[in-house]
Amino acid sequence: MNVSMKSEIETPATEAETRPRRRPAGRTGCGVEATLSVVGGVWKPVLLFHLLRGKLRFNALCRLTPRATQRMITLQLRELENDGVLRRIVYPEVPPKVEYELTEFGRSLEPVLLSMRAWGEAFQARMDGSDKPPRTC
Amino acid sequence: MNVSMKSEIETPATEAETRPRRRPAGRTGCGVEATLSVVGGVWKPVLLFHLLRGKLRFNALCRLTPRATQRMITLQLRELENDGVLRRIVYPEVPPKVEYELTEFGRSLEPVLLSMRAWGEAFQARMDGSDKPPRTC
Repeated sequence: MNVSMKSEIETPATEAETRPRRRPAGRTGCGVEATLSVVGGVWKPVLLFHLLRGKLRFNALCRLTPRATQRMITLQLRELENDGVLRRIVYPEVPPKVEYELTEFGRSLEPVLLSMRAWGEAFQARMDGSDKPPRTC
Repeated sequence: MNVSMKSEIETPATEAETRPRRRPAGRTGCGVEATLSVVGGVWKPVLLFHLLRGKLRFNALCRLTPRATQRMITLQLRELENDGVLRRIVYPEVPPKVEYELTEFGRSLEPVLLSMRAWGEAFQARMDGSDKPPRTC
């Protein structure tokens, strides 16, 4: 199988982006706010649904999420990694191989995401006055 | 019971704020994004948890949410009303009496919010390396 080196190389991040995000003190102290801080990034739920099906290489995640830029995907993955939801596995190979995998703690998000997805689909159908649209995540 | 007229009067909103929020087309098309667009405002989960216990007057909601300004509460309630999650009941009385109540559709958010709160509390405890903090919502 031909693996494109170029597509496997992730966008370099600045120092500000690589250091663990400083979590602001919760404004409300409500647990929902903490969950929102983890899954609230625009592409995070989509990436998490893909990873719930198993570990994936970076460029597979990019192919599965064609409307997001590679840079956006990199940043969202990094935040999820900092939050302990997924791990980045770098294989000591040439060419380099990088995979992403949910941690056990990350897997505990599954029922939360399923519940949020189901409600959101009902909400969308209600707002559009239509049947549920085909699922994209 | 003495009811303060002043505290019952909500902050006037500008025209831009009162017209129904134009919902941007989903960027990802994922149902989770739709749920985030409804419950993602910082004080919305807290207000929704209070309203899950029953309908409340505006100033009762303000008392129960002392760290939010009256204006923030007004705006969050208005968005939730536009999204069909709650209704605003104005009683034709002097002094005017306004109550907020979840719609049946709004009540369907309960399991979603409970699931998000439980996960968020586990996340907070994990990040702080401590036991679960006392619940604030």
